[in-house]
Parts: sequence; C-alpha cells; structure tokens
Amino acid sequence: MLIIGERINSSRKSISGAISSGDREFIQQEANLQAAAGASYIDVNAAAFVGEEIEKLKWVVDAVQQGTDLPLCIDSPDPEAIRAVLPMLRKPPMINSITLEPDRLERILPLVAQYRAKVIGLCQSDEVMAESTETKIELAGRLVGKIKEAGIPLDDLYIDPLVYPLGTGATSAQSTLEAIELIMKEFPGVHTTCGLTNVSHGLPSRKLVNRTFLTACIIRGLDSAIMDPTDKLLYGALRAAVMIAGRDDFCMEFIQAFRAGLLE
Amino acid sequence: MLIIGERINSSRKSISGAISSGDREFIQQEANLQAAAGASYIDVNAAAFVGEEIEKLKWVVDAVQQGTDLPLCIDSPDPEAIRAVLPMLRKPPMINSITLEPDRLERILPLVAQYRAKVIGLCQSDEVMAESTETKIELAGRLVGKIKEAGIPLDDLYIDPLVYPLGTGATSAQSTLEAIELIMKEFPGVHTTCGLTNVSHGLPSRKLVNRTFLTACIIRGLDSAIMDPTDKLLYGALRAAVMIAGRDDFCMEFIQAFRAGLLE
Repeated sequence: MLIIGERINSSRKSISGAISSGDREFIQQEANLQAAAGASYIDVNAAAFVGEEIEKLKWVVDAVQQGTDLPLCIDSPDPEAIRAVLPMLRKPPMINSITLEPDRLERILPLVAQYRAKVIGLCQSDEVMAESTETKIELAGRLVGKIKEAGIPLDDLYIDPLVYPLGTGATSAQSTLEAIELIMKEFPGVHTTCGLTNVSHGLPSRKLVNRTFLTACIIRGLDSAIMDPTDKLLYGALRAAVMIAGRDDFCMEFIQAFRAGLLE
Repeated sequence: MLIIGERINSSRKSISGAISSGDREFIQQEANLQAAAGASYIDVNAAAFVGEEIEKLKWVVDAVQQGTDLPLCIDSPDPEAIRAVLPMLRKPPMINSITLEPDRLERILPLVAQYRAKVIGLCQSDEVMAESTETKIELAGRLVGKIKEAGIPLDDLYIDPLVYPLGTGATSAQSTLEAIELIMKEFPGVHTTCGLTNVSHGLPSRKLVNRTFLTACIIRGLDSAIMDPTDKLLYGALRAAVMIAGRDDFCMEFIQAFRAGLLE
C-alpha cells in the first residue's frame, strides 16, 4: 500500500503561513510526522502562491529534502512549476497529476518519462463528467493508452477514478468502488489511488465517512491513497483493511503499526 | 440493515450478575440502550446457567419484553430452552441459531415454521470446517435446501458464513467476504449476517479490526449484523458503510443517526 502524505499543502493555513515566513523547521516537522506515521511519499504543494508558486515550491522541496529521505510527490496545476523542481529531486518522484486535458498531458508525460517518475492520472476530461462506472473505465483506458504511447511502464501509473459527493447520488461511491475493481482487473500492472475527502462533501462526520470509504476502496483493490497518515483512526482503518483484504502476511504490518502506536 | 443487539448475553459478567440477582431494571436498561442505538432485535442468552437455563431465559425474556417493544432473538444451545420461551413472545422472533447438525435442525426448523420466526443459519457441519469460500457456499446451499424443505420462506433465513481468525491465515476474512457476495447472488432473497469478534482473535486493537471487517462485509453485501450498537465507532462504521454501499437514499439514515448522536 503506497501512502502519499497530503499535509504539506498550501491550501492549509498553517502550511501557507510557514511558507510565507520561511519556517523550514515547521515544514520539516510536517514531513517527519508523516514519515513516522507510514507515508511512502510526501506531497508538496505551493499552488496557493499565485504568481510566485515556482519560487515557493522550490523552497518547500528544498526544505523537505533536507528533513526526510522519503521521495516527494510534486503537486501543482502548473506544468512549469513541476518542470522547475524536477532537477532538484534526489529520488524519483511522483507527479500529481495528469488528466486527459491534451495540453497538460503533452507537457507532463515527457517529464514523467525523463525522470522515471510515477504519475497520478485522474479520470477527468473536458468532455464528460466521470460519474458512471462505465465513463470512469473508459477514461482510465484512455489514460493507460497515453502512458503506453509515451513509453512509460504501466507500473508507474496511479489511476484515480475520482469520487463525487454522496450527496449528489446514492451510487456515487459505489461507481468509484466498481471502477477500482475493474481498473485493477482490466489493466494488469496499473495501480489505483484516490483522494478521499470529496466523498463526504456536505455531510456531517466527514472523517468517519472518509475512513469508511478508504476501507471500502481497499477491500475492492485500491493499492494507494492520498491521505493524512497521522490521523490514527484513518491509518488504523487502512492497516486493518489491508489485513482483512488478505494483503498483510502473518498480520505483520498491522502488528508492527500497533506496536509503533500508529493505530486507533 | 437488520441489527441484532448482542449485549444481553450471560457470558458477560454484568449480565449474569443481573440475572442471578434478579435485577430486572439493569436488564431492561441494556435492552433500551440498544433499542435507542439502532437495534432491530434484542438477543437474549442465559446459556451460562447450566441446568437452570430454561428458567433463567424465561425470566430474561419477560424482563426484556416489559421494557421494550423490539422483537427478541432467542439465543440458546438448547432447543428445549428455545421451545420453552417461544409461546411467551409478543412478536415473531429470530432464533439464534441452526447449523447442519441434524438433531438440532430437526427440532428447531418446525419451531421456526410454527412461530414464523427468522433464523440464523451457521455454515457449520460435523464433517468439515468452513474455511474456504467453496465450503462456505456449499454449506450455505445445504442450509437453503433444508429451509425450503421445511416450507420456510428464504426471506427468513440469515446465513452466517463464519469467519476464522486472521491469525489462522491471511485469506480467512477474504473467503468470508467472497462467500457473502456469492451467497447473496446465488440464493436470491436470502440474507447474510455475521458475528464479528472471531476475526480479530489473538490480534491487538480488536475493536478496530472488528469494525473494519464489518465495513468490508457491508460493502460486499451483508445485510444484517450481530453486534453492540451502543459502540459508537462500530455503529458509525455501519451507517457510513451502508451509505457508501448505495443503500441509504439521500443519506437520510446516516444524517438521522448523526443528529441522534449515535455516530463517532
């Protein structure tokens, strides 16, 4: 299970504040907390700094790399910001994200290939909303095609089938769960990931809904998640779900996480 | 989702103490707590009182019926104890449980038919351990056959495919999850239920494992559970899982449970 720690995101006040004031220690602490809690990649995002994103993202990348050995997940709406920080990275990164939007694809796929990066591919195009299982699968197939054309191994693609809020329709989560299972079957070697927070938009007890949705996704085959691993209830649900799904031999990872005090 | 509240079980010290001392108020409070927390049936068990189970079970049934309007789930290893309390019941009960053991089947199925009861059928026989998905399905098919022969509607059968501890093998939970999905598909109209605690035997953080397993079961189609609905984390997982599975129109049940303070 590949975990992308999402905490260093400039949409969070404490993070944008630390970036503004140049508080390297705070950013490094956020990275280390996530590393200790089981993150495989540290997501870095400075997109809130419109007009100075590149400079700020470089600073964040440098700060995080000084503090942790984990690889980074470069999270930006601007392909130029992604291109600017790639040469700084000590380990092959993940890029967050591509959609089927042609201009962005054309600019980012060569970087993925050149830097042997992993990449998150969202089931999203300009033409349709990926609400039904069928549309999600169709868009996933097109992403797989683009990745193959670019000579990138399928093992480097993490497809996010997207989830729409449960308030928009009773089957919104179900179609994402079905898509996860079908994508893992139809495109052997590919991975799936999912942003969790959208599912609970407009509902009470959002954290409960998000962690229950993560459990459901893992049971249907999800093998990566973009999340806050320091949330012990969420991380506990993840470790238990991976074990229940039969993907934790001798319950070793679960027991180790318990001993490290990471579960609740 | 049919919830069988499991708290009034004589294997719990507080319950056997209350039965011994004839503390009706305590037993009624246990029933009312579960009713308020979303139980559909109140399980009653006095099996710890070997030699005086029938007398004690009658007392418990009477106490609970004075305190709540919910139907009861009569839980006993002794068919005579079940037979003794059935005439006392104000509402059609559930019987917990039958296996494929012939003597018990022969004595209990006529009672199920006569009292229009629901019945829990365990995937268990003297000959095999129901560890694999295939064995669970085969035993489920034999239970379905017995129920039909006895003229009992399939809608009254709740099949428990059993779960073995995760410590006994990485796929123990997976085979139960697969069995739930297959049973619901192959025998249309039947229901599935599951005792949750066995899955976490020998593991730390047992409540976390149990509630994650319940979530997984619901995602695969489970429509009943034997559980403690007053455990807010467990009940919260149930309500969120039912919603995520697309079985809570307009999220009404989830939102109502939130407003009633039942979720965590």
